[in-house]
Amino acid sequence: MSAPPVQPSHALLQPLPLDRARLEEGFWGRLQTVSRSAVIPHAVEWMERLGWVANFDGAASGTRYEHRGREFADSEIYKIIEAISWERAHSGPSALDTIADDLIRRVAAAQEPDGYLHTLFGRPWQAPRYSDFTWGHELYCFGHLIQAAVAHHRAYGTRSLLDVAVRLADHVCVMFGPGGLNRVCGHAEIEVALVELFRTTGERRHLDQAALFIERRGTGTLPLIEFGRAFAQDDLPVREADVLRGHAVRALYLAAGAVDVAVETGDRELLDALRTQWDNTVARRTYITGGMGSHHMDEAFGEDHVLPPDRSYCETCAGVASIMFSWRLLLATGEPRYADLIERTLHNIVATSLGEDGRSFFYANTLHQRHPSDDVPLNDDGVCIRGGSGRRQAWYEVSCCPPNLARTLASLGGYLATTTSDGIQIHQYASSTIDAVVAGGPFELDVTTDYPRDGAVTITVRQAPARPASVTLRDPEWSAATRLSLNGEPAPMTLTRTWQVGDRLELTLDLRPRVVRPDHRVDAVRGCVAVRRGPEVLALESVDLPPSWALEDATLLPDTVAAEHGSVVATARHHRTGEDRAVPLIPYRSWARRGPSAMRVWIPEARG
Amino acid sequence: MSAPPVQPSHALLQPLPLDRARLEEGFWGRLQTVSRSAVIPHAVEWMERLGWVANFDGAASGTRYEHRGREFADSEIYKIIEAISWERAHSGPSALDTIADDLIRRVAAAQEPDGYLHTLFGRPWQAPRYSDFTWGHELYCFGHLIQAAVAHHRAYGTRSLLDVAVRLADHVCVMFGPGGLNRVCGHAEIEVALVELFRTTGERRHLDQAALFIERRGTGTLPLIEFGRAFAQDDLPVREADVLRGHAVRALYLAAGAVDVAVETGDRELLDALRTQWDNTVARRTYITGGMGSHHMDEAFGEDHVLPPDRSYCETCAGVASIMFSWRLLLATGEPRYADLIERTLHNIVATSLGEDGRSFFYANTLHQRHPSDDVPLNDDGVCIRGGSGRRQAWYEVSCCPPNLARTLASLGGYLATTTSDGIQIHQYASSTIDAVVAGGPFELDVTTDYPRDGAVTITVRQAPARPASVTLRDPEWSAATRLSLNGEPAPMTLTRTWQVGDRLELTLDLRPRVVRPDHRVDAVRGCVAVRRGPEVLALESVDLPPSWALEDATLLPDTVAAEHGSVVATARHHRTGEDRAVPLIPYRSWARRGPSAMRVWIPEARG
Repeated sequence: MSAPPVQPSHALLQPLPLDRARLEEGFWGRLQTVSRSAVIPHAVEWMERLGWVANFDGAASGTRYEHRGREFADSEIYKIIEAISWERAHSGPSALDTIADDLIRRVAAAQEPDGYLHTLFGRPWQAPRYSDFTWGHELYCFGHLIQAAVAHHRAYGTRSLLDVAVRLADHVCVMFGPGGLNRVCGHAEIEVALVELFRTTGERRHLDQAALFIERRGTGTLPLIEFGRAFAQDDLPVREADVLRGHAVRALYLAAGAVDVAVETGDRELLDALRTQWDNTVARRTYITGGMGSHHMDEAFGEDHVLPPDRSYCETCAGVASIMFSWRLLLATGEPRYADLIERTLHNIVATSLGEDGRSFFYANTLHQRHPSDDVPLNDDGVCIRGGSGRRQAWYEVSCCPPNLARTLASLGGYLATTTSDGIQIHQYASSTIDAVVAGGPFELDVTTDYPRDGAVTITVRQAPARPASVTLRDPEWSAATRLSLNGEPAPMTLTRTWQVGDRLELTLDLRPRVVRPDHRVDAVRGCVAVRRGPEVLALESVDLPPSWALEDATLLPDTVAAEHGSVVATARHHRTGEDRAVPLIPYRSWARRGPSAMRVWIPEARG
Repeated sequence: MSAPPVQPSHALLQPLPLDRARLEEGFWGRLQTVSRSAVIPHAVEWMERLGWVANFDGAASGTRYEHRGREFADSEIYKIIEAISWERAHSGPSALDTIADDLIRRVAAAQEPDGYLHTLFGRPWQAPRYSDFTWGHELYCFGHLIQAAVAHHRAYGTRSLLDVAVRLADHVCVMFGPGGLNRVCGHAEIEVALVELFRTTGERRHLDQAALFIERRGTGTLPLIEFGRAFAQDDLPVREADVLRGHAVRALYLAAGAVDVAVETGDRELLDALRTQWDNTVARRTYITGGMGSHHMDEAFGEDHVLPPDRSYCETCAGVASIMFSWRLLLATGEPRYADLIERTLHNIVATSLGEDGRSFFYANTLHQRHPSDDVPLNDDGVCIRGGSGRRQAWYEVSCCPPNLARTLASLGGYLATTTSDGIQIHQYASSTIDAVVAGGPFELDVTTDYPRDGAVTITVRQAPARPASVTLRDPEWSAATRLSLNGEPAPMTLTRTWQVGDRLELTLDLRPRVVRPDHRVDAVRGCVAVRRGPEVLALESVDLPPSWALEDATLLPDTVAAEHGSVVATARHHRTGEDRAVPLIPYRSWARRGPSAMRVWIPEARG
């Protein structure tokens, strides 16, 4: 049996290996299929075409080569290896295996004798190693290599990449350990990777190095840049901060790694600080979609309540990173709000970013597109050179999101459920099979649902443990009237009993649309309403308005919002003419799938 | 008699030389005094300290030197020479003259035999000349040198810098003329400079080169960058655009130069296009303060109605550039709305940026500061390395604004009035003397006022022409009840008569505070009101609230806004407690003068 993507040595809830929590056909299952069949090959094609993989061949050749792509191009190859590994973990052998083998061979050949591995630094014609902590992304790339190696080892059981990662990690421990360079990477990432490597190798030095990086961050070891010290979270020690700030992906990767360190070292103070940071960030610095980061300039969190929908950044990778942070807190504490945010982010960021063909992506996920997108700068390779865009793009100059989506979707089954010695906790609702082992023996559940289209979820016991065991279902924060029955009788959300094969839990979630009004301190959406339906945020898209209406002239009558034949409709009123029209509100994730359009999530409330 | 800063060969209104329109003690006179006594020496001190002036010494030495500052550091020295020249033009000889002499000597020594002059490019250890049109700012710097040379020649009557400028301009005509490099500078500026040089030298090739640059812009000769082709206005030919877009200062300098070209070449189509651009930009892309540019990332205009107050950029230099654009349109058309915007921008951008001591400046002028500023990144030299800041800073890494303020304030008298053959037009109200010559002979007016504190303006005829002449006063767009009398009798805003020495015009402008509501398409301020008083935009500053109130909890009862002893007060209501308090609304330009504070121009309207 393979190990799960995140495997704490001790946590309240135990994650399931990916071959124990498998998605079946359904909303999430389809996303995973698209990722496996399209995103992964698409990303490999682009990275070969642009020469990002060939950087490793150049490095291995020992002769001069022109490095292609940005400072962090290496990491995208690593993320794809990680994605293929998690695909293997739940679905077994496939043609992807040889792709991973080829990439790993080329990566391994580029490693230098002392363990260092980065294709942009250190050769005579390149900048020296460790000469640019602010933007160089060396340790960041190492982190992704280590994460890929852990995934590969857990999925394939071989050490071909793990040995490379251990040599690299050992190099890092020597260079940056006690008595070494007192520096951190401008982009956090290696911390979360080193802890997972420790969980694989059992080598304490890898955990110690992660803990040292966490403690060192916030002590001002990075040069001051235009965006300030907060950009790379170097303004305050992690344990002293009470909210996330600066570059969103950096902040969230750091927080995820810090939870891992806190869990492994039993550092309650650090864990409490991170929970506080999560609370304040979600309450004050998170969009209704779960999106994080409102600055385009520095891809950063704004101040509290600075959440403009039209300049929302909500980078796809920040969504991925937010899920990483929340998942680790869920395992550590068992509190359902972390699963709530994971669900919100999966439905409204991850699923929004991904084009239906698996070959196009949003880098940033705006909540308000004023006009159909007509200014997308593509370079001669057809690569989009800006993150913000009103259309999903095939590839970006900074193309962190496609591989990040791929590794997230490949490991999606892992977020469905956890176990304790006495039961199973179901956190996300998707057609799936949960195949756990509890104190009383194997405990297998079948989950079938058309969620999120429909609120009915049926859970059938396929194999029951010999002793009483519990099943705990998450009651989502948004469900005002959740109902559960066991074999037709009302039941509580946690049931402990002796289960029988064929026992049937029927859960009904309340998917009635809900009108939401913003906090009065969010200036950018004052006087507006949004509509949610289950985990979905809804949106008004220009293609659904009468041709003579501009999106900016449409206001909404909140009392008219209603469910109708599985979709949601409402009455829009023209700001100037007063004309009323029934309009559909579509899931936000579906916008811009019928061609370029204008769209808004927060809609001005009609007056009078 | 010296020439005015902008001297069209033919225009509806003729500008006055600076020694013919002199500011006296008063609001604007005091700003000019601060600039002369503090801003200019302060800027020279910083530019010497940071080595920006020494770059010229290095270039002149012929030996290797380390270039200090950014690509455009040369231009700041030129702007200060321009500022000193305009000071000289209205105030005569002073100690500043030797500063200008010294700077000009050092600049001139750095010119190369073929006329090229830039301290960052072309030497064996530097990047080659013209190797980076996107960011190199070579032609931009040339433009500022030419503007300084024109100012110096007009003020001092000598050719010490003008000869340098002509050699440089001739080099440009050879390099970039017909048959030369088909390129434009990433940052427009040389266009406006070359036209003014033509107006000084009469050399048609300088005008032709400016016209060629204007025509070439928008044909895609610049490399594509992340911010798109619109960033440097290379997306559309100037005459085809209907609104300003991209980097605000670039767009406005370009527009100013294009008006000059249109006027000198009699190109009505081009002039009409620019008038349309002005109309649409002011209607849809300009803040209530006159500020332009809502993106921090690319210092650029947003789309129509994207005017978030908390992420407003409103660069000080964009205010200066907006005044340049409007002034040229005012001269060409005589339409008072251009003077209205100049006034709005002077009072709310120029006057806001400048610290009272003349030694601190806002680079960006936000309309909403949520919390007192506590994150201002200063480098080891004490230089602020970011534009956006809630405090006025002594110097910036990109320190275009202090010299730009200095040259604007030095030439401020020039904006007060114009002449035609038969009269004087007064555009701005400030204590001053206007000393014109009309068809009937000398015509001298004395203007005394305590405006904008008070709405009374007295204009006394000190010298009268022999024949009937007109006096035209601007009736500001904001004044609901303007009154004018001549020697005690009601009079229209344009009077044509035979004037007598001692004739006395008494103008009363309506300074009652006005509550303003935003266009419904400006999402960021929906449900808010702003208050204006004359040309001033008012603001609510946190230091005027009860200590227990957060600025974000304060709402306003619009009906309570009232003038009281020369200031404006209103009732604020606490969003949660419902408590009411009388609060002062201060001129926006005065914010952050009592220490760091939170502030907002657009204030949520109290409910109920």
